[in-house]
Amino acid sequence: MCGTEKAALVDKCSLSSTAKENGTRTTLSSDAVINLDHGDPMAYEPYWREMGDKCTVVIPGCQSLSYFANKDNLCWFLEPELEEEIKRLHRVVGNAAVEDHHVVVGTGSTQLIQAALYALSPPDESEPTSVVSAAPYYSCYQEAADFLRSGLYKWAGDARAFDKDGPYIEFVTSPNNPDGSIREAIVKRGQGKLVHDLAYYWPQYTPITCCAHFDVMLFTASKCTGHAGSRIGWALVKDKDVAIKMTKFIEISTIGVSKESQIRSAKILGVISDSCLHPGSNNFFEYGHRIMAERWGKLREVVGSGKIFSLPEYPTEYCLFTGEFSETHPAFAWMKCNKNVEDIEKFLRGQKVLARSGKRFGSDPNYVRLSMLSREEEFEIFLHRLLAIQGTSN
Amino acid sequence: MCGTEKAALVDKCSLSSTAKENGTRTTLSSDAVINLDHGDPMAYEPYWREMGDKCTVVIPGCQSLSYFANKDNLCWFLEPELEEEIKRLHRVVGNAAVEDHHVVVGTGSTQLIQAALYALSPPDESEPTSVVSAAPYYSCYQEAADFLRSGLYKWAGDARAFDKDGPYIEFVTSPNNPDGSIREAIVKRGQGKLVHDLAYYWPQYTPITCCAHFDVMLFTASKCTGHAGSRIGWALVKDKDVAIKMTKFIEISTIGVSKESQIRSAKILGVISDSCLHPGSNNFFEYGHRIMAERWGKLREVVGSGKIFSLPEYPTEYCLFTGEFSETHPAFAWMKCNKNVEDIEKFLRGQKVLARSGKRFGSDPNYVRLSMLSREEEFEIFLHRLLAIQGTSN
Repeated sequence: MCGTEKAALVDKCSLSSTAKENGTRTTLSSDAVINLDHGDPMAYEPYWREMGDKCTVVIPGCQSLSYFANKDNLCWFLEPELEEEIKRLHRVVGNAAVEDHHVVVGTGSTQLIQAALYALSPPDESEPTSVVSAAPYYSCYQEAADFLRSGLYKWAGDARAFDKDGPYIEFVTSPNNPDGSIREAIVKRGQGKLVHDLAYYWPQYTPITCCAHFDVMLFTASKCTGHAGSRIGWALVKDKDVAIKMTKFIEISTIGVSKESQIRSAKILGVISDSCLHPGSNNFFEYGHRIMAERWGKLREVVGSGKIFSLPEYPTEYCLFTGEFSETHPAFAWMKCNKNVEDIEKFLRGQKVLARSGKRFGSDPNYVRLSMLSREEEFEIFLHRLLAIQGTSN
Repeated sequence: MCGTEKAALVDKCSLSSTAKENGTRTTLSSDAVINLDHGDPMAYEPYWREMGDKCTVVIPGCQSLSYFANKDNLCWFLEPELEEEIKRLHRVVGNAAVEDHHVVVGTGSTQLIQAALYALSPPDESEPTSVVSAAPYYSCYQEAADFLRSGLYKWAGDARAFDKDGPYIEFVTSPNNPDGSIREAIVKRGQGKLVHDLAYYWPQYTPITCCAHFDVMLFTASKCTGHAGSRIGWALVKDKDVAIKMTKFIEISTIGVSKESQIRSAKILGVISDSCLHPGSNNFFEYGHRIMAERWGKLREVVGSGKIFSLPEYPTEYCLFTGEFSETHPAFAWMKCNKNVEDIEKFLRGQKVLARSGKRFGSDPNYVRLSMLSREEEFEIFLHRLLAIQGTSN
């Protein structure tokens, strides 16, 4: 790429239509640290600002004092309106079966990952149950499985390398975190239990190709609506006893889940369902899809302008929700460095871009995971830095 | 007690001034199951209804999307206004030192109990660290310590019977749950770490006799303000490294704590501090103290009218907060059955009163723990049932 072309690309980035539309103020200095390590979903903030009062919640002081939300329900701390709106949204989007599943709410899907481990580990084994996922796998599975040195379960690494007999739990993340690939179970043995982590199985990220119907499916508001601060996740669980044990885990570890967050999430999920059902309203998933497609387009353009980095390619599929063909636009970019750089995370840190090393995902240090959900301004600065790196390295 | 006296006592219960003042509707049938197993703090609801709009929170859809609340703080998910209101309330009440302590917020103090176990267990021991508390101890310590069969820590039972060498963690609960006694550490050996669970060290339950200044002190909104549904607890932690490890535990287990609950708790704690500082406003602790004193008075009267049950006695102490002498009015009644009843929990269940057996607290089955924080109506029905039991047994 010649200098003039590069200047044009830089210019294009600066004049981002999305940034202007959103009225994002320029508050960061050009040498600010850009944190793309966490998937902090700030990209959705402008949408919620636009929606104004529609999703405001008002909670009086005398509301929700009790531990209980619905004493007659299996998940006794689940607010009935949240259960209803979770089911409605899945029906509207068509991404997961809810009719024959129990809903268990958690403090983010993070708590539900642990609840699933607790519920699916046989209580009477002499050895901890092996926990696996195909590399590159979500970095938090290993941490969640091992941090308390549980005698019930233990991280056993890459599902593809797993050859032990006996019970195991496999996490199937689809689209996958960190690399966005669509996945199926790998181990496929009799005594295995599967947890389908479908945090990113929403139309802004990937075409909805079928209505998922697995035994345990995990979702989270953080990646669906962008409300990570609410710490609301939910599990759709087919087997009643598993749902009861997951509920028990949450009872012992936190005696339920914030009522305020549940009430607000119910409202927000409801606004999203409404936005899909009423033509002319600001369809949330169309908005999200547009942002993601635009960002991926720009990132591919910048990465393609040099030879240092490369990105995964994704197939085009028909989306049952939008009725259109589309490719996956993951919430994270899984970027490979093709140059002889020992540790790309460290190298990027030197450029004031924080990313998560491939090592954390059971992969190589020449990969990094970068959030695609930052504020628009941060994303633009990141693109500039990437361009600059390529400029000095070509 | 003669029949006429008993009838008068029944009548007195029915015409509870508190119930009338609070405008509590009679919604329960006289044979409803009364659940006094959990300490569901519904007794505070009328206060918060009275306070009206003063403690209403309004949260727009675009607020608190981020995982982060205060990136520069050790506890990066703690909302600054909650930290400020926690510190202000402790200063107003004088029950705990905050100047040289870090605040770590948790999803209820339940999560902080586990965070403390994680933070205080030496990571490099071959054996799990022993966790003890003097019987009768809070039933959840054992469950929290053992449910994941952690290799880091393990429940070792009654602190008074603990004779192992090596590291240990002792929970000191004061006032104690279940029996309301004021406590100090028991084991007192070199390698021990103490966690002071001060959930009930508030003026409505017990005289504030000193400003607590321990290494790790746990509090919870559930028992202070009555907002159990918010799942907000906090730890005051002297040692920076311990505070960092507790924060890490909450990061791994739930990636922080609900922002909505934090924002609302900040508002509610602020209203309580204001109510103490402005003469003529409806002082929250005076209200709580009045309810608790009234309920304990009635319960003692009913229990004293027969010979089947007995209750602990508490000393009168000078309260630095109210400037008056008062006795402890615990949030739970630790009731002993003096008759030859094998399992008092089971017996009460037959009378449609749910209580928690002494066995769960490392004590005997002729004790039960009964919540004193139920709705007024439930408390009254409970008193009637107790009277009826005594009537048939005398």
